[in-house]
Amino acid sequence: MTRNIKLVLEYDGAAFYGFQRQPRHHTVQETLEKALSQLLNAPVRIHAASGRTDTGVHAMHQVVNFKTVSPLATHTLQRGLNALLPKTLAVRTAEEVEASFHARYDARFKVYEYRIWNDAVRSPLRAGHAWHVSQKLDRKAMRQAMAALKGRHDFRSFCAAHGSAKTTVRTIRRLSLRRQDAMLFFRVEADGFLYHMVRNIVGTLVEVGRGKIRPEDVRKILRACDRKQVGPTAPPGGLTLASVTY
Amino acid sequence: MTRNIKLVLEYDGAAFYGFQRQPRHHTVQETLEKALSQLLNAPVRIHAASGRTDTGVHAMHQVVNFKTVSPLATHTLQRGLNALLPKTLAVRTAEEVEASFHARYDARFKVYEYRIWNDAVRSPLRAGHAWHVSQKLDRKAMRQAMAALKGRHDFRSFCAAHGSAKTTVRTIRRLSLRRQDAMLFFRVEADGFLYHMVRNIVGTLVEVGRGKIRPEDVRKILRACDRKQVGPTAPPGGLTLASVTY
Repeated sequence: MTRNIKLVLEYDGAAFYGFQRQPRHHTVQETLEKALSQLLNAPVRIHAASGRTDTGVHAMHQVVNFKTVSPLATHTLQRGLNALLPKTLAVRTAEEVEASFHARYDARFKVYEYRIWNDAVRSPLRAGHAWHVSQKLDRKAMRQAMAALKGRHDFRSFCAAHGSAKTTVRTIRRLSLRRQDAMLFFRVEADGFLYHMVRNIVGTLVEVGRGKIRPEDVRKILRACDRKQVGPTAPPGGLTLASVTY
Repeated sequence: MTRNIKLVLEYDGAAFYGFQRQPRHHTVQETLEKALSQLLNAPVRIHAASGRTDTGVHAMHQVVNFKTVSPLATHTLQRGLNALLPKTLAVRTAEEVEASFHARYDARFKVYEYRIWNDAVRSPLRAGHAWHVSQKLDRKAMRQAMAALKGRHDFRSFCAAHGSAKTTVRTIRRLSLRRQDAMLFFRVEADGFLYHMVRNIVGTLVEVGRGKIRPEDVRKILRACDRKQVGPTAPPGGLTLASVTY
Protein backbone atom coordinates (compact mmCIF):
# COMPACT_ATOMS: atom_id res chain seq x y z
CA MET A 1 0.00 0.00 0.00
CA THR A 2 1.32 3.45 -0.89
CA ARG A 3 1.76 5.79 2.08
CA ASN A 4 2.18 9.57 2.02
CA ILE A 5 4.79 10.87 4.50
CA LYS A 6 5.19 14.47 5.65
CA LEU A 7 8.54 15.66 7.02
CA VAL A 8 9.46 18.94 8.70
CA LEU A 9 13.08 19.91 7.95
CA GLU A 10 15.57 22.30 9.51
CA TYR A 11 18.73 23.26 7.62
CA ASP A 12 21.63 25.65 7.49
CA GLY A 13 21.30 27.30 4.08
CA ALA A 14 25.00 28.16 3.89
CA ALA A 15 25.79 24.46 3.48
CA PHE A 16 23.70 23.95 0.35
CA TYR A 17 23.39 25.30 -3.16
CA GLY A 18 19.72 26.10 -2.55
CA PHE A 19 16.87 23.63 -2.08
CA GLN A 20 16.07 22.39 -5.58
CA ARG A 21 17.93 19.52 -7.23
CA GLN A 22 20.49 20.76 -9.78
CA PRO A 23 23.16 18.98 -11.79
CA ARG A 24 26.65 19.08 -10.22
CA HIS A 25 25.50 20.92 -7.06
CA HIS A 26 24.95 19.88 -3.47
CA THR A 27 21.31 20.80 -2.70
CA VAL A 28 18.87 20.02 0.13
CA GLN A 29 16.59 18.04 -2.18
CA GLU A 30 19.40 15.89 -3.55
CA THR A 31 20.80 15.22 -0.04
CA LEU A 32 17.41 14.26 1.39
CA GLU A 33 16.30 12.16 -1.60
CA LYS A 34 19.59 10.26 -1.52
CA ALA A 35 19.22 9.46 2.20
CA LEU A 36 15.55 8.47 1.73
CA SER A 37 16.33 6.22 -1.25
CA GLN A 38 19.13 4.56 0.73
CA LEU A 39 16.89 3.99 3.75
CA LEU A 40 13.80 2.84 1.82
CA ASN A 41 15.78 0.94 -0.81
CA ALA A 42 13.85 2.59 -3.67
CA PRO A 43 14.03 5.89 -5.55
CA VAL A 44 12.12 8.66 -3.74
CA ARG A 45 10.93 11.99 -5.11
CA ILE A 46 10.00 14.74 -2.61
CA HIS A 47 7.73 17.80 -2.94
CA ALA A 48 8.54 20.90 -0.86
CA ALA A 49 6.44 23.77 0.50
CA SER A 50 9.12 26.20 -0.67
CA GLY A 51 11.13 24.44 -3.33
CA ARG A 52 12.96 27.46 -4.64
CA THR A 53 14.84 28.79 -1.61
CA ASP A 54 18.29 30.06 -2.64
CA THR A 55 21.80 29.27 -1.50
CA GLY A 56 22.28 30.74 1.98
CA VAL A 57 18.57 30.84 2.89
CA HIS A 58 17.92 28.85 6.08
CA ALA A 59 14.90 26.86 7.23
CA MET A 60 13.63 26.29 10.76
CA HIS A 61 10.52 24.66 9.33
CA GLN A 62 10.47 23.51 5.70
CA VAL A 63 7.80 20.94 4.85
CA VAL A 64 8.13 18.13 2.30
CA ASN A 65 6.11 15.05 1.42
CA PHE A 66 6.78 11.85 -0.52
CA LYS A 67 5.09 8.58 -1.42
CA THR A 68 6.46 5.19 -0.42
CA VAL A 69 5.34 1.56 -0.20
CA SER A 70 7.74 0.95 2.69
CA PRO A 71 6.08 -0.13 5.97
CA LEU A 72 8.85 1.54 8.05
CA ALA A 73 7.47 3.30 11.17
CA THR A 74 7.74 7.09 10.91
CA HIS A 75 9.86 7.42 14.09
CA THR A 76 12.28 4.79 12.72
CA LEU A 77 12.38 6.65 9.43
CA GLN A 78 13.13 9.93 11.25
CA ARG A 79 15.93 8.44 13.35
CA GLY A 80 17.43 6.68 10.34
CA LEU A 81 17.39 9.88 8.27
CA ASN A 82 18.95 11.95 11.06
CA ALA A 83 21.74 9.38 11.33
CA LEU A 84 22.39 9.50 7.57
CA LEU A 85 22.00 13.25 6.96
CA PRO A 86 24.86 15.74 7.42
CA LYS A 87 24.81 17.90 10.57
CA THR A 88 23.59 20.83 8.44
CA LEU A 89 20.21 19.14 7.77
CA ALA A 90 17.77 17.43 10.15
CA VAL A 91 14.26 15.98 10.12
CA ARG A 92 12.36 17.61 13.00
CA THR A 93 9.17 15.54 12.65
CA ALA A 94 7.88 12.73 10.44
CA GLU A 95 4.22 11.65 10.16
CA GLU A 96 1.93 9.74 7.85
CA VAL A 97 -0.69 11.96 6.19
CA GLU A 98 -3.64 11.38 3.89
CA ALA A 99 -2.91 10.42 0.29
CA SER A 100 -4.09 13.77 -1.10
CA PHE A 101 -1.70 15.94 0.97
CA HIS A 102 0.81 17.91 -1.12
CA ALA A 103 3.44 20.03 0.72
CA ARG A 104 3.46 22.73 -1.95
CA TYR A 105 -0.09 22.96 -3.29
CA ASP A 106 -1.80 22.61 0.09
CA ALA A 107 0.26 25.27 1.89
CA ARG A 108 -2.14 28.02 3.02
CA PHE A 109 0.32 30.43 4.67
CA LYS A 110 4.06 30.65 5.01
CA VAL A 111 6.10 32.77 7.41
CA TYR A 112 9.58 34.02 6.64
CA GLU A 113 11.87 35.77 9.12
CA TYR A 114 14.58 38.20 8.05
CA ARG A 115 17.31 39.32 10.47
CA ILE A 116 19.35 42.52 10.30
CA TRP A 117 22.30 43.16 12.61
CA ASN A 118 21.98 46.95 12.86
CA ASP A 119 25.17 48.03 14.56
CA ALA A 120 28.26 50.02 13.59
CA VAL A 121 30.35 46.87 14.12
CA ARG A 122 29.67 43.57 12.32
CA SER A 123 29.03 40.50 14.50
CA PRO A 124 31.19 37.40 13.80
CA LEU A 125 28.84 35.18 15.83
CA ARG A 126 25.88 36.25 13.67
CA ALA A 127 27.70 36.25 10.30
CA GLY A 128 25.74 34.23 7.73
CA HIS A 129 22.58 34.47 9.86
CA ALA A 130 21.88 38.20 9.64
CA TRP A 131 22.50 41.06 7.20
CA HIS A 132 24.93 43.58 8.69
CA VAL A 133 23.62 47.14 8.17
CA SER A 134 25.90 49.62 9.94
CA GLN A 135 23.88 52.79 9.32
CA LYS A 136 21.27 53.57 11.96
CA LEU A 137 17.79 52.79 10.60
CA ASP A 138 14.65 54.83 11.22
CA ARG A 139 12.30 52.12 12.47
CA LYS A 140 9.31 54.47 12.61
CA ALA A 141 9.66 55.21 8.89
CA MET A 142 10.12 51.50 8.16
CA ARG A 143 6.95 50.59 10.08
CA GLN A 144 5.05 53.26 8.12
CA ALA A 145 6.25 51.69 4.85
CA MET A 146 5.34 48.22 6.14
CA ALA A 147 1.73 49.30 6.66
CA ALA A 148 1.48 50.06 2.93
CA LEU A 149 2.63 46.54 2.02
CA LYS A 150 0.12 44.65 4.17
CA GLY A 151 -2.93 43.19 2.48
CA ARG A 152 -3.71 41.99 -1.05
CA HIS A 153 -1.58 43.63 -3.75
CA ASP A 154 0.13 42.99 -7.05
CA PHE A 155 3.73 42.51 -5.83
CA ARG A 156 5.27 42.52 -9.33
CA SER A 157 7.63 45.36 -8.28
CA PHE A 158 9.08 43.08 -5.61
CA CYS A 159 9.50 40.02 -7.83
CA ALA A 160 12.86 39.02 -9.35
CA ALA A 161 13.07 39.59 -13.13
CA HIS A 162 13.24 35.83 -13.80
CA GLY A 163 10.23 34.96 -11.61
CA SER A 164 7.82 32.58 -13.31
CA ALA A 165 4.58 32.93 -11.30
CA LYS A 166 1.31 32.98 -13.26
CA THR A 167 -0.06 35.81 -11.13
CA THR A 168 1.92 38.29 -9.04
CA VAL A 169 -0.97 39.08 -6.69
CA ARG A 170 -0.31 37.94 -3.11
CA THR A 171 -1.80 38.68 0.32
CA ILE A 172 0.49 39.68 3.18
CA ARG A 173 -1.46 38.79 6.32
CA ARG A 174 1.16 39.97 8.78
CA LEU A 175 4.33 42.02 8.56
CA SER A 176 6.09 42.88 11.79
CA LEU A 177 9.36 44.32 13.04
CA ARG A 178 10.81 43.48 16.45
CA ARG A 179 14.10 44.63 17.91
CA GLN A 180 16.30 42.83 20.46
CA ASP A 181 19.52 44.72 21.23
CA ALA A 182 21.05 45.49 17.82
CA MET A 183 19.13 42.74 16.03
CA LEU A 184 16.05 43.55 13.96
CA PHE A 185 13.62 40.71 13.20
CA PHE A 186 11.18 41.11 10.32
CA ARG A 187 8.42 38.51 10.03
CA VAL A 188 6.25 38.22 6.92
CA GLU A 189 3.24 35.94 6.71
CA ALA A 190 1.60 35.55 3.31
CA ASP A 191 -0.49 33.11 1.28
CA GLY A 192 2.47 32.79 -1.08
CA PHE A 193 5.72 34.49 -2.03
CA LEU A 194 7.15 35.54 -5.38
CA TYR A 195 10.80 34.81 -6.18
CA HIS A 196 13.00 37.12 -4.01
CA MET A 197 9.88 38.86 -2.66
CA VAL A 198 10.94 38.94 1.02
CA ARG A 199 14.51 39.95 0.20
CA ASN A 200 13.27 42.74 -2.10
CA ILE A 201 10.81 43.98 0.54
CA VAL A 202 13.56 44.02 3.19
CA GLY A 203 15.99 45.74 0.79
CA THR A 204 13.37 48.41 0.17
CA LEU A 205 12.55 48.82 3.87
CA VAL A 206 16.26 49.34 4.59
CA GLU A 207 16.34 52.12 1.97
CA VAL A 208 13.37 53.66 3.79
CA GLY A 209 15.17 53.27 7.14
CA ARG A 210 18.23 54.99 5.64
CA GLY A 211 16.11 57.88 4.35
CA LYS A 212 16.77 57.03 0.69
CA ILE A 213 13.14 56.14 -0.04
CA ARG A 214 10.26 58.01 1.65
CA PRO A 215 7.80 55.69 3.43
CA GLU A 216 4.88 57.21 1.51
CA ASP A 217 6.60 56.29 -1.78
CA VAL A 218 6.38 52.56 -1.04
CA ARG A 219 2.70 52.61 -2.05
CA LYS A 220 3.68 54.19 -5.38
CA ILE A 221 6.43 51.60 -5.92
CA LEU A 222 3.86 48.88 -5.29
CA ARG A 223 1.41 50.45 -7.78
CA ALA A 224 4.08 50.99 -10.43
CA CYS A 225 4.54 47.20 -10.83
CA ASP A 226 8.11 47.95 -11.89
CA ARG A 227 11.08 46.01 -10.46
CA LYS A 228 13.49 48.91 -11.11
CA GLN A 229 11.91 51.14 -8.47
CA VAL A 230 12.53 48.96 -5.42
CA GLY A 231 15.61 48.84 -3.21
CA PRO A 232 18.41 46.27 -3.65
CA THR A 233 17.75 42.60 -2.89
CA ALA A 234 18.78 41.88 0.72
CA PRO A 235 21.41 39.10 1.01
CA PRO A 236 20.16 35.50 1.48
CA GLY A 237 21.88 34.72 4.83
CA GLY A 238 19.42 36.89 6.80
CA LEU A 239 16.42 34.89 5.57
CA THR A 240 14.83 31.88 7.29
CA LEU A 241 11.69 29.95 6.37
CA ALA A 242 10.01 29.97 9.81
CA SER A 243 6.75 28.06 9.32
CA VAL A 244 4.19 26.67 6.89
CA THR A 245 0.48 26.36 7.72
CA TYR A 246 -1.87 23.89 6.01
CA MET B 1 54.81 58.46 23.93
CA THR B 2 53.72 54.90 24.59
CA ARG B 3 49.96 54.39 24.75
CA ASN B 4 48.07 51.42 26.19
CA ILE B 5 45.06 50.35 24.11
CA LYS B 6 42.22 48.08 25.24
CA LEU B 7 40.15 46.19 22.67
CA VAL B 8 36.97 44.16 23.12
CA LEU B 9 36.81 41.28 20.61
CA GLU B 10 34.05 39.04 19.32
CA TYR B 11 34.91 35.86 17.41
CA ASP B 12 33.56 32.60 16.09
CA GLY B 13 35.70 29.97 17.79
CA ALA B 14 35.09 27.38 15.06
CA ALA B 15 37.23 29.46 12.69
CA PHE B 16 40.38 29.41 14.87
CA TYR B 17 42.74 26.91 16.43
CA GLY B 18 42.13 28.50 19.84
CA PHE B 19 43.23 31.91 21.03
CA GLN B 20 46.92 31.55 21.79
CA ARG B 21 49.62 31.91 19.13
CA GLN B 22 50.97 28.53 18.02
CA PRO B 23 53.34 27.50 15.25
CA ARG B 24 51.64 26.44 12.01
CA HIS B 25 48.11 27.17 13.28
CA HIS B 26 45.59 29.90 12.56
CA THR B 27 44.80 31.43 15.98
CA VAL B 28 42.96 34.56 17.17
CA GLN B 29 46.15 36.05 18.64
CA GLU B 30 48.16 35.54 15.45
CA THR B 31 45.36 36.97 13.27
CA LEU B 32 44.91 40.06 15.45
CA GLU B 33 48.63 40.73 15.97
CA LYS B 34 49.22 40.46 12.23
CA ALA B 35 46.46 43.00 11.46
CA LEU B 36 47.69 45.34 14.24
CA SER B 37 51.31 45.16 13.06
CA GLN B 38 50.20 45.89 9.51
CA LEU B 39 48.08 48.85 10.58
CA LEU B 40 50.60 50.33 13.05
CA ASN B 41 53.64 49.46 10.95
CA ALA B 42 55.46 47.88 13.92
CA PRO B 43 55.38 44.52 15.70
CA VAL B 44 52.61 44.34 18.30
CA ARG B 45 52.18 41.88 21.18
CA ILE B 46 48.76 41.54 22.81
CA HIS B 47 47.71 40.31 26.27
CA ALA B 48 44.28 38.67 26.66
CA ALA B 49 41.86 38.30 29.57
CA SER B 50 41.40 34.63 28.63
CA GLY B 51 44.40 33.63 26.56
CA ARG B 52 43.82 29.89 26.70
CA THR B 53 40.40 29.46 25.14
CA ASP B 54 40.34 26.32 22.97
CA THR B 55 39.45 25.63 19.37
CA GLY B 56 35.68 25.99 18.99
CA VAL B 57 35.17 28.21 22.06
CA HIS B 58 33.49 31.49 21.07
CA ALA B 59 33.78 35.00 22.50
CA MET B 60 31.13 37.71 22.65
CA HIS B 61 33.46 39.79 24.81
CA GLN B 62 37.16 38.91 25.00
CA VAL B 63 39.43 41.72 26.24
CA VAL B 64 43.00 42.37 25.09
CA ASN B 65 45.49 45.21 25.54
CA PHE B 66 48.71 46.23 23.80
CA LYS B 67 51.26 49.04 23.87
CA THR B 68 51.96 51.26 20.88
CA VAL B 69 53.70 54.55 20.09
CA SER B 70 51.31 55.15 17.19
CA PRO B 71 49.20 58.32 17.52
CA LEU B 72 46.34 56.71 15.52
CA ALA B 73 42.91 57.62 16.94
CA THR B 74 41.20 54.61 18.55
CA HIS B 75 38.12 54.82 16.29
CA THR B 76 40.39 54.85 13.22
CA LEU B 77 42.27 51.88 14.65
CA GLN B 78 39.00 50.02 15.21
CA ARG B 79 37.69 50.68 11.70
CA GLY B 80 41.04 49.77 10.16
CA LEU B 81 41.20 46.50 12.09
CA ASN B 82 37.63 45.54 11.21
CA ALA B 83 38.44 46.13 7.55
CA LEU B 84 41.56 43.92 7.75
CA LEU B 85 40.23 41.11 9.98
CA PRO B 86 38.32 38.10 8.62
CA LYS B 87 34.54 38.07 9.09
CA THR B 88 34.99 35.55 11.92
CA LEU B 89 36.73 38.15 14.15
CA ALA B 90 35.75 41.75 14.98
CA VAL B 91 36.81 44.55 17.33
CA ARG B 92 33.68 45.69 19.18
CA THR B 93 35.31 48.63 21.00
CA ALA B 94 38.75 50.26 21.20
CA GLU B 95 39.85 52.74 23.88
CA GLU B 96 42.99 54.19 25.39
CA VAL B 97 43.52 53.11 29.01
CA GLU B 98 46.05 53.93 31.72
CA ALA B 99 49.58 52.56 31.31
CA SER B 100 49.19 50.05 34.16
CA PHE B 101 46.11 48.28 32.75
CA HIS B 102 46.68 44.60 31.94
CA ALA B 103 43.83 42.63 30.34
CA ARG B 104 44.75 39.39 32.09
CA TYR B 105 46.09 40.38 35.51
CA ASP B 106 43.52 43.09 36.19
CA ALA B 107 40.45 40.98 35.33
CA ARG B 108 38.31 40.73 38.49
CA PHE B 109 35.46 38.56 37.20
CA LYS B 110 34.71 36.67 34.03
CA VAL B 111 31.42 35.25 32.83
CA TYR B 112 31.13 32.22 30.57
CA GLU B 113 27.93 30.99 28.98
CA TYR B 114 27.37 27.36 28.00
CA ARG B 115 24.50 26.32 25.73
CA ILE B 116 22.86 22.91 25.51
CA TRP B 117 20.30 22.04 22.84
CA ASN B 118 18.21 19.61 24.87
CA ASP B 119 15.91 18.01 22.32
CA ALA B 120 15.48 14.56 20.80
CA VAL B 121 16.43 16.04 17.41
CA ARG B 122 19.71 17.90 16.75
CA SER B 123 19.41 21.48 15.44
CA PRO B 124 21.39 22.29 12.26
CA LEU B 125 20.97 26.04 12.82
CA ARG B 126 22.56 25.74 16.29
CA ALA B 127 25.29 23.24 15.37
CA GLY B 128 28.68 24.46 16.59
CA HIS B 129 27.00 26.88 19.02
CA ALA B 130 25.37 24.42 21.42
CA TRP B 131 25.95 20.90 22.70
CA HIS B 132 23.23 18.55 21.54
CA VAL B 133 22.01 16.41 24.44
CA SER B 134 19.03 14.31 23.33
CA GLN B 135 18.13 12.72 26.68
CA LYS B 136 15.70 14.73 28.79
CA LEU B 137 17.58 16.41 31.67
CA ASP B 138 16.28 16.81 35.23
CA ARG B 139 16.77 20.55 35.72
CA LYS B 140 15.74 20.42 39.37
CA ALA B 141 18.55 17.95 40.14
CA MET B 142 21.00 20.05 38.13
CA ARG B 143 20.06 23.22 40.07
CA GLN B 144 20.59 21.30 43.32
CA ALA B 145 24.09 20.29 42.18
CA MET B 146 24.80 23.87 41.06
CA ALA B 147 24.14 25.14 44.59
CA ALA B 148 26.99 22.95 45.87
CA LEU B 149 29.43 24.49 43.39
CA LYS B 150 28.73 28.13 44.24
CA GLY B 151 31.21 29.94 46.46
CA ARG B 152 34.92 29.51 47.25
CA HIS B 153 36.22 25.97 46.70
CA ASP B 154 39.22 24.01 45.53
CA PHE B 155 38.10 23.13 42.00
CA ARG B 156 40.97 20.68 41.35
CA SER B 157 38.44 17.94 40.47
CA PHE B 158 37.16 20.12 37.63
CA CYS B 159 40.56 21.07 36.22
CA ALA B 160 42.09 19.37 33.16
CA ALA B 161 45.02 17.09 33.97
CA HIS B 162 47.48 19.39 32.18
CA GLY B 163 46.30 22.57 33.91
CA SER B 164 49.18 24.70 35.20
CA ALA B 165 47.55 27.02 37.75
CA LYS B 166 49.51 27.69 40.98
CA THR B 167 46.37 27.37 43.08
CA THR B 168 43.16 25.56 42.16
CA VAL B 169 40.99 27.58 44.57
CA ARG B 170 38.42 29.75 42.79
CA THR B 171 35.23 31.59 43.77
CA ILE B 172 32.06 31.07 41.74
CA ARG B 173 29.98 34.17 42.40
CA ARG B 174 27.04 33.17 40.24
CA LEU B 175 25.92 30.00 38.53
CA SER B 176 22.54 30.03 36.81
CA LEU B 177 20.47 27.93 34.44
CA ARG B 178 17.85 29.43 32.16
CA ARG B 179 15.72 27.63 29.59
CA GLN B 180 14.24 29.02 26.38
CA ASP B 181 12.35 26.40 24.35
CA ALA B 182 14.75 23.47 24.06
CA MET B 183 17.86 25.57 24.72
CA LEU B 184 19.49 25.55 28.16
CA PHE B 185 21.78 28.47 29.04
CA PHE B 186 24.27 28.03 31.87
CA ARG B 187 26.07 31.18 33.07
CA VAL B 188 29.07 30.99 35.38
CA GLU B 189 30.66 34.07 36.93
CA ALA B 190 33.95 33.56 38.81
CA ASP B 191 37.10 35.41 39.80
CA GLY B 192 39.02 33.03 37.57
CA PHE B 193 38.70 29.72 35.77
CA LEU B 194 40.92 26.65 35.66
CA TYR B 195 41.66 24.97 32.34
CA HIS B 196 38.44 23.22 31.13
CA MET B 197 36.69 24.16 34.39
CA VAL B 198 33.39 25.32 32.82
CA ARG B 199 33.27 22.41 30.39
CA ASN B 200 33.94 19.93 33.22
CA ILE B 201 31.28 21.53 35.40
CA VAL B 202 28.72 21.36 32.56
CA GLY B 203 29.73 17.78 31.74
CA THR B 204 29.14 16.85 35.39
CA LEU B 205 25.82 18.72 35.58
CA VAL B 206 24.60 16.82 32.51
CA GLU B 207 25.46 13.53 34.25
CA VAL B 208 23.37 14.78 37.19
CA GLY B 209 20.54 15.75 34.81
CA ARG B 210 20.69 12.25 33.28
CA GLY B 211 20.53 10.64 36.72
CA LYS B 212 24.06 9.16 36.43
CA ILE B 213 25.45 11.29 39.30
CA ARG B 214 23.32 12.16 42.33
CA PRO B 215 23.15 15.92 43.01
CA GLU B 216 24.31 15.39 46.62
CA ASP B 217 27.45 13.63 45.31
CA VAL B 218 28.71 16.79 43.59
CA ARG B 219 29.87 18.14 46.96
CA LYS B 220 31.86 14.92 47.51
CA ILE B 221 33.38 15.15 44.01
CA LEU B 222 34.44 18.71 44.80
CA ARG B 223 36.00 17.65 48.13
CA ALA B 224 37.79 14.64 46.60
CA CYS B 225 40.01 16.95 44.48
CA ASP B 226 40.20 14.13 41.96
CA ARG B 227 39.71 14.72 38.25
CA LYS B 228 38.59 11.11 37.64
CA GLN B 229 35.34 11.53 39.58
CA VAL B 230 33.74 14.25 37.43
CA GLY B 231 31.64 13.81 34.29
CA PRO B 232 33.04 14.06 30.74
CA THR B 233 34.30 17.41 29.44
CA ALA B 234 31.47 19.12 27.52
CA PRO B 235 32.39 19.92 23.89
CA PRO B 236 33.90 23.38 23.18
CA GLY B 237 31.29 24.67 20.68
CA GLY B 238 28.70 25.28 23.43
CA LEU B 239 31.02 27.65 25.31
CA THR B 240 31.20 31.44 24.92
CA LEU B 241 33.23 33.98 26.89
CA ALA B 242 30.41 36.43 27.67
CA SER B 243 32.08 39.22 29.67
CA VAL B 244 35.12 40.37 31.68
CA THR B 245 34.88 42.85 34.55
CA TYR B 246 37.82 45.01 35.73
